[in-house]
This record gives sequence, C-alpha cells and structure tokens, in this order.
Amino acid sequence: MSPSKTAFIGLGVMGSPMAGHLVKSGHKVTVFNRTPAKAEAWCEEYGGERAATPAQAAAEADFVFICVGNDEDVRAVALGDTGALAGMAAGAVLVDHSTVSAHLARELAEAAGACDVGFLDAPVSGGQAGAENGALTIMVGGEEAVFERAAPVMDAYARAVTLMGPAGSGQLTKMVNQITVAGLIEALAEGLAFAVNAGLDAKKVVDVISKGAAQSWQMENRAGTMLEGEFDFGFAVDWMRKDLDICLEEAKRNGSELPVAELVNRFYEEIQKAGGGRRDTSSLIGRLPRGNGVEK
Amino acid sequence: MSPSKTAFIGLGVMGSPMAGHLVKSGHKVTVFNRTPAKAEAWCEEYGGERAATPAQAAAEADFVFICVGNDEDVRAVALGDTGALAGMAAGAVLVDHSTVSAHLARELAEAAGACDVGFLDAPVSGGQAGAENGALTIMVGGEEAVFERAAPVMDAYARAVTLMGPAGSGQLTKMVNQITVAGLIEALAEGLAFAVNAGLDAKKVVDVISKGAAQSWQMENRAGTMLEGEFDFGFAVDWMRKDLDICLEEAKRNGSELPVAELVNRFYEEIQKAGGGRRDTSSLIGRLPRGNGVEK
Repeated sequence: MSPSKTAFIGLGVMGSPMAGHLVKSGHKVTVFNRTPAKAEAWCEEYGGERAATPAQAAAEADFVFICVGNDEDVRAVALGDTGALAGMAAGAVLVDHSTVSAHLARELAEAAGACDVGFLDAPVSGGQAGAENGALTIMVGGEEAVFERAAPVMDAYARAVTLMGPAGSGQLTKMVNQITVAGLIEALAEGLAFAVNAGLDAKKVVDVISKGAAQSWQMENRAGTMLEGEFDFGFAVDWMRKDLDICLEEAKRNGSELPVAELVNRFYEEIQKAGGGRRDTSSLIGRLPRGNGVEK
Repeated sequence: MSPSKTAFIGLGVMGSPMAGHLVKSGHKVTVFNRTPAKAEAWCEEYGGERAATPAQAAAEADFVFICVGNDEDVRAVALGDTGALAGMAAGAVLVDHSTVSAHLARELAEAAGACDVGFLDAPVSGGQAGAENGALTIMVGGEEAVFERAAPVMDAYARAVTLMGPAGSGQLTKMVNQITVAGLIEALAEGLAFAVNAGLDAKKVVDVISKGAAQSWQMENRAGTMLEGEFDFGFAVDWMRKDLDICLEEAKRNGSELPVAELVNRFYEEIQKAGGGRRDTSSLIGRLPRGNGVEK
C-alpha cells in the first residue's frame, strides 16, 4: 500500500485513534475537529496537520474520512461552502464512518457524484477498543471500484472491511447489527435479573448456559459486569438510542416490524431520563427489579 | 463407574436415546412408557426390560430417571400408587430430567425425602442431537451427597452435569436459559427480517456481524435456516411455550419483570394458533414481514 494524502474529520473517541493509525501506516493526515483543542492535542500526539475548516482539510486529500455523531453533524462537515466536498478534487474519495441514516448516505453519494468524487458509507463496529487496536469491522456501501481504492487505506484501522452493496448498504448492515444487539442485551438482562431473584448463583448459571443455545458475545463479555452493576465503559446508551431511532425510522420505510427493538428503545429512553445516558448499553439490567445483590 | 440398576420413565425423542446411553455404558435398564409400543421398540433396539407401571420399573432400581412433558405428566409417573416413588427402595435416587416448575421439584424432593429416597431436579439442554450424541448439559438441584452418587450415572449422556443449588435450582437455571434464548431468537429474527426488507444480502450480513457484539449461538446455528424458511427440526414452539409459561409464573413469584420474554411468548402463541406448534423456535421470523425471498 503506497502512502496517500488523507484528511480525517471528527476526532472523538473513535476518530482520534483511527486517524492515528493512518499516520502510523505512513499516510499523510490533515485533521479537522469542531472543538479545535482536540485537533491541537491530536496533532501534538501524532504529528499530523490541522485545518481551519473541513474544506481546507480535504483540499489536498485523495481520501477524506468523516467520523462524527448524527445526520446533522455529517451534513455540517460534508456539505456547504466549508464542507469537505467543497474542497475535494475530482477523483478523490469521501468515506463516512459515522452511523447515520441510509437516505443521508444515498444523498451524499449523489452529491459526491455530482463533484466527480467517490463516496462510501462505512459505519464501523468494534467500539473504542476496536478503534484503538486497529481492529474495527467496517460495513461499506458504494461502488466496487471506489471500494477497491479505499479499502487498503481503511486497513490501517480495520480487521475486516466488507462491501455490502450500493450506497446506503453499509448503514443498513450496521442497523441489522444494532437491532440484533439491542434485543439480545435485554434478553440477557432479563435472564440474569431472574437468576438473581431466584436466589441462584448467577455467575455459575452463566458458566453453565453459555456452553449452549443461550451463548452470545454479550453473555461472554457483559454478563459479569452486568451482575456487578458496572456500566461506566463501552457503548453509551445515548449512542444506541440515536442508532435505534435510525433503525426504527428505516423500518417504517422498508416495511419491517421491530417490536422488541422498539420496546428496548423505550427502555433506553427511561435510562436516559434517569440520567444514565453515558452508561454502557448493558445497563438495561439496571431497570429490572433484582431482589438482592446487584447495584441499581 | 460400576454398573447400576436403573429405571428410565419416558421414551420420547430425548428419553429414548438417553436410556440407550445407559445400556451402552453397562447399566441395567428397565423402562416404562405410557405408549407401550414405544417401550417395546426401545427394548428391541437396546435389549433392556420393560415394566407395566412406573412403580414396577422402579422396584429394583438404584437410580430412577424421568423424562416426560409437563408438571402433570411428571406427577402421573412419579406419585400415586403406580408412580415411581411407590416402588422405590429406601436409599435409591429419583432424578427428574423433565423441564417443569421449581415448586414441583421442591414438592417431589419432599415426597422422596419422606420415603428416604434422594431426589434431583435435573433438566437438560442440548436438544435431540445432544441426547443422541450423549452430550447434554444437565442443570441439577438437590443435595450434594445425592448429586455425587447420581452424577457418574448421568455422565452416560451428558457433556456437563452441574449442581446449581438446593431442590428446584436445576429448574430455575433452565428457566434462565429459556428466558435468554427466547428474546435472543426474536432479536435475531427482527434483525434478519430487516436485512431482507432492506434489500441486503442477509447471509453476507450475518457473516460480517457474527464477528462482533451481535454474535450468538443462535446466529451461528439458526440464521441460515431462518433465512431459508426451514423450521422442521429442533426445539418445538409447543415445548418453548410450555417452558415460558413456567418462567412467567415463577417470575410472578420471585418478583422478576420479563417484558421481552412475555412478548415473545405471545408471538409463539400466535404461531401455535396458526398451526406452527411443531416448528422449531427459530420460526419466530415467520411472523415478521419480509418483502422478498423468505417463505412465510
């Protein structure tokens, strides 16, 4: 992989280490962040350059990566006079790593196409640890030729990069992931809270049932902390709510029914209202009655 | 393990191969089944003996195993004049492998104790394949001394036999398993149906997301058949409904809330009413709209 000129927009808990991996892989990286202090700190740590606007960051880049919060945030840094697209040269590629709606992905693909710029929607999974260890899973929507050019650059922070279909397909795949994870965590939470209320040794129960049909990544990685009432880590309820809102809106559009995802979204809303929005998604167990032992 | 005199009551899809494994391990086995033809067929295949009542089957046995349907079925073969307990000698052990209520388990433990007979509630997981391959997971409630005597005999058909606590703890552990599995399958079904409706290659989606936080035994073992609409195998909806009813009743007793398990139980009820009671539990996907491809 020959070094490329890149721009990275959005230096949060995900974007900051991802952009760092680009530097470590030998790419030239120019960054932009809405809070300039974060971009300054990033440049001190990794030695890249800092731009005053997304358009300026993108001006010289062959590949521009965005990793911000929601649809509105992506629009703000991608579109308009100071947005990334305004600065990009024909033939360059814009990649959006944010988890946003599929229709925004299609809109950006169209806007990019009008500027002769390639576009990929490329949400990630693997969390902060995956970003730090360069082991993210990336689900990509877009054209194959564009994908082939950008995938080797994304390898800097990915364990797997897969083209799922045309523009929007990356976002839709991420939605399937979030729908499945949300219901799965609630099912695990209900089982664990029941175990506690039944007076069982819940950790022993997990040891036994994780060998069979109840096994899941969530059970192996979260049951212990759920039983300890530890939620100050991981993927925040606030982010999951944003993602589930996107899923539920898309479900209306494509005719899907998501009764459990909808219910779990309401449970997360309760947790937010009770001040738990920054807690890990496994904090679903916190709203279930548990007769003894577990901190609420 | 020295050979024991055993009795096995209930030769269904689980009990029949389990009793067969006892013969293969060198134990003497006398069987009883409500439908005598099944007992005859079993004796022809495995060469054990057949009794006219549970009491007669149990008369000479050091260990008596029951594997039938619900609370009522267990009462019918364990209690009363012709029930197993009536025939058992002091010092023998009664083991119930059926999935039933925890209060029946405690009641049987008391009734057995009054006859100086040991009792273990010992529901299994691993399904028909686990029974046939002698690879069941057995969750046991009862006294440790009784468990120590019976566990080596159960090894004939088990991969793991674990004492979970006093009488009833085996059943309660199995309930945790079923609660978790029920919600997990629905979450997976919602994700897969959404993938289909979104026009994604759903198998490719499974390949990608099964590497991370959405991974589960159900995803690895059932997503493929769910997408193909194959449900004529596995663990029947009728059995899961019976188990979930037990879970929901116990939840009322111990103060647990099971919103998703309750919802999924209603979905299974719908499937039963539509004539799908014998289908595998993964048939939950069958009641969700899927725009293209999957057989309803």
